[in-house]
Amino acid sequence: MKFLSDIEIAQNKELKHIKNIAKKLSIEEDDLEMYGKYKAKLPLNLINEEEIAKNNLVLVTAMTPTPSGEGKTMVSIGLTEGLNKVGKQATVVLREPSLGPVFGIKGGAAGGGYSQVVPMEDINLHFTGDFNAVEKANNLLSALIDNNLQSKCCSLNLDPRTILWKRVIDMNDRSLRKITIGLGGTANGIPREDGFNITPASEVMAILCMATSFENLKTRLGNIFVGFTFDKKPIFARDLKAEDAMAILLKDAIKPNLVQTLEENPAIIHGGPFANIAQGTNTIIATKVGLSLSNYVVTEAGFGADLGAEKFLNIKCQAAGLSPKAVVLVATIKALRHHGGAAKDQINEPNLGLVKKGICNLVKHIENINKYNIKPVVAINAFVNDLPEEIDYVIKKCNKIGVQAVVMESWAKGGEGAMSLANAVVDIVDDTTEKFTPIYNWDMPVKEKIEKIAKEIYGASAVDYDKKAKLNLKRIERLGFNNFAVCMAKTQKSFTDNEFLRGRPENFVVTVREIEIAAGAGFIIPILGQMMRMPGLPAAPASEAMHIDKNGVISGLS
Amino acid sequence: MKFLSDIEIAQNKELKHIKNIAKKLSIEEDDLEMYGKYKAKLPLNLINEEEIAKNNLVLVTAMTPTPSGEGKTMVSIGLTEGLNKVGKQATVVLREPSLGPVFGIKGGAAGGGYSQVVPMEDINLHFTGDFNAVEKANNLLSALIDNNLQSKCCSLNLDPRTILWKRVIDMNDRSLRKITIGLGGTANGIPREDGFNITPASEVMAILCMATSFENLKTRLGNIFVGFTFDKKPIFARDLKAEDAMAILLKDAIKPNLVQTLEENPAIIHGGPFANIAQGTNTIIATKVGLSLSNYVVTEAGFGADLGAEKFLNIKCQAAGLSPKAVVLVATIKALRHHGGAAKDQINEPNLGLVKKGICNLVKHIENINKYNIKPVVAINAFVNDLPEEIDYVIKKCNKIGVQAVVMESWAKGGEGAMSLANAVVDIVDDTTEKFTPIYNWDMPVKEKIEKIAKEIYGASAVDYDKKAKLNLKRIERLGFNNFAVCMAKTQKSFTDNEFLRGRPENFVVTVREIEIAAGAGFIIPILGQMMRMPGLPAAPASEAMHIDKNGVISGLS
Repeated sequence: MKFLSDIEIAQNKELKHIKNIAKKLSIEEDDLEMYGKYKAKLPLNLINEEEIAKNNLVLVTAMTPTPSGEGKTMVSIGLTEGLNKVGKQATVVLREPSLGPVFGIKGGAAGGGYSQVVPMEDINLHFTGDFNAVEKANNLLSALIDNNLQSKCCSLNLDPRTILWKRVIDMNDRSLRKITIGLGGTANGIPREDGFNITPASEVMAILCMATSFENLKTRLGNIFVGFTFDKKPIFARDLKAEDAMAILLKDAIKPNLVQTLEENPAIIHGGPFANIAQGTNTIIATKVGLSLSNYVVTEAGFGADLGAEKFLNIKCQAAGLSPKAVVLVATIKALRHHGGAAKDQINEPNLGLVKKGICNLVKHIENINKYNIKPVVAINAFVNDLPEEIDYVIKKCNKIGVQAVVMESWAKGGEGAMSLANAVVDIVDDTTEKFTPIYNWDMPVKEKIEKIAKEIYGASAVDYDKKAKLNLKRIERLGFNNFAVCMAKTQKSFTDNEFLRGRPENFVVTVREIEIAAGAGFIIPILGQMMRMPGLPAAPASEAMHIDKNGVISGLS
Repeated sequence: MKFLSDIEIAQNKELKHIKNIAKKLSIEEDDLEMYGKYKAKLPLNLINEEEIAKNNLVLVTAMTPTPSGEGKTMVSIGLTEGLNKVGKQATVVLREPSLGPVFGIKGGAAGGGYSQVVPMEDINLHFTGDFNAVEKANNLLSALIDNNLQSKCCSLNLDPRTILWKRVIDMNDRSLRKITIGLGGTANGIPREDGFNITPASEVMAILCMATSFENLKTRLGNIFVGFTFDKKPIFARDLKAEDAMAILLKDAIKPNLVQTLEENPAIIHGGPFANIAQGTNTIIATKVGLSLSNYVVTEAGFGADLGAEKFLNIKCQAAGLSPKAVVLVATIKALRHHGGAAKDQINEPNLGLVKKGICNLVKHIENINKYNIKPVVAINAFVNDLPEEIDYVIKKCNKIGVQAVVMESWAKGGEGAMSLANAVVDIVDDTTEKFTPIYNWDMPVKEKIEKIAKEIYGASAVDYDKKAKLNLKRIERLGFNNFAVCMAKTQKSFTDNEFLRGRPENFVVTVREIEIAAGAGFIIPILGQMMRMPGLPAAPASEAMHIDKNGVISGLS
């Protein structure tokens, strides 16, 4: 039997006109801004706080992932299909993929197998131009900064050595990580060190995803912290009168995008901030539009629950006043073997012993979700070489600590493979009486917030601060940013800040090396290790195997 | 009386749904790929060669311009309105504006006054994402080049010092003109000199505009000349297996965009290559789609007729097999005064003497157009401080050499102000019996082609070649690119290569400093002076005066 590739499955699907998908959400055709026949932007006035309060938000997160990921996007889509199959009106709300990884190793991010959002080519390429708009807004600010350095008449006295704002490009391009600009004489600006990040790492992306309205977006853009003057005064984007022009560039990007799943259910895809140095989840506006129109909204957040769910719950939900009713923890037998100590080549081989050793990782994530007063359900994303004994063990172990675990087969079967998960989610939502409570409140002292996360979520015994981090703490205090949320930047491969420590490490200390400020997004970013902000291409880039024929049919895109 | 700004006029207009504009061209609604309600992409299968041969192509070009431009886009739009008013079915086909100048000095490029294409904000901002697609395709090739330099397994042995391909960004950003990349150690690539051009200067943009089909686009992308190996072999984009991925990024950008004029006539806006180092006119595909659907197509080409019309006729029309029926030469009294020797502060003051002195410039352009066997008509783009005597003089002078000159008032009056111009154009088209003949054929020797242009169009007595240019000629010979078109890069401010020589200089020599190769676009580029490929922002950037309110209404964009 030949397995079809993701793109072949997506191309075999005959798509419904987006008008018909919109109808399922009772959106008037006149409210749709169509981008071709299968994509549309939605207006912000669809947001209805009363409906949001009544409807049900479900977060899909995961145990500590292996490098290939555990399939959160695929599970989110599958679960949405499943919920619709069991008679619930459900919408999936996701992040937009970055173009860079499409030509690198990772590929796109539109789900997989029989759980995909379509048209997958468009979603994985330029989509409706949101990433481009973010990139341009980011780089306009950069151009304004360097133009001000060059300017004689209107200088802000900005010290070029203190500039924190970088340019971005949505491309895997390692050569742009560290560059010098402004070379070649007086006409070409002031020479200084700079670098490009990939577009999802832009604070403008984080801002777009935190914004609650167009006005709020503009205010946040103005609040971007650029650097210091030679006499140590902070300079913000508003000092460069940049926020209106940046907002103009984002006037369409702020509107969420409607597409469809393979089973013709609504999918809202909007925003795509990095999960390592930003909040790693779609826009507040998209989530709210989804909840305004749909009884169930299934959404996801990047990496494992120690990062994705933590930021989703403590940053996004607190900022937006959202209260999730259930959390799905995606686990794979493969990842459990990994956390049980499997060598790289053992990870795909059945091994109950390793699963038993690795279950501690999943258990810690379960305990963590309980701390938020939300009930988790474990979704075991099934692979062909999982042994029944391995799966049985996980289910029983979860049951023993009061949590349901169900096998999820939507990669192969779509919504049908997610019906038991859907039923489990509905049970939790219907039974929920407790209200979600965050781990920390934003108005706590900065160090207390960081410690809360490190100790309660990671399981650390203490937090150390490097010299630079201590200076950064003083800067945050001085600038009056104490009441910002905390957006941790830590490896996704471990509960600790050491990517090699698997399972459920104990008695460890995490070290905050420095603390960045994202004043527009409204959070500080404690850096717990080297964070990649500009990936490179592999020796044989995915682009080499891509083809497009004269009818525009693409192959080799994944 | 308060004059409304361009954006106010545009915003006061209640736009027709793009479906209704498409109906005027007999395009089925199902063939439209809508981008919101007022923009749509058109499929390439609308191209119909039989119709193209029957219908009438009209080029709008200009005398040697002053820095503020003589209003070709505005005249093109006004003429289209005028043609529709006199009972012809006419479509305007234009270039897309670049984002960079919108935030700089020049502003957008959607016409002006009561001759505009709308929605002007969208057209001047991201529009349908074509520029972004070009930028990404360009920069993917850059990333692949630097990745290949870094690669151990798949090295092409490319000599980094010979790389001609630059990155692009659609932003006025002088600090990126000259940079060093790949700094910071072995993980970050190979250090080398590089620089960013603005996106319209990308060869990918030139290619998109020269492509006659999707297959042809892909072939051209593969033909891009990247640089040499250490043993002096040429490397092309196809050696990096880049052309399919680049074409994938351009799969939507290749489709022309339909919008409307203020008087609800069809406007097709597509592609935007620089006019100094590239062909400076919209895509062949857009022009052909227009001509397939419309009895009259009015189009324009950048700068004065020595550059814009020359390239349009010799490069685009020869490549596409197009045969224009009439040429409109835009003149302003202001520009005539300028060429008569007016000082900067005299240019807006009535002065018949200076107009009489400056008319030689217009006359030379008229003579040039006649050389193509096309009859020109002069459109005097009227300004409030033009004297009747000045205008009378121009009309009579033109008549004396057998050319009609009409006053054009569409900035203030829209189509109504262009009816006499429209009638004059219709007369020429109806009377045309001769067939357009180019100045040179592509298969002539390179130097002969360059001399043809320099002598017959510029009026030069001879062409000099710098040492570098001579070496470049040998390279062109060696690479087998002799039969490429010639895309001259010369100042637009003078017939000569010296921007300070106004009027109609005689007995001058032009110097070719070097000759670049755009092997994908299919032309060589003789460089006759410093060409700006990355503008800077002014001390007070236009962005500072832009505003957007909470309903998304923009002001300060021009």
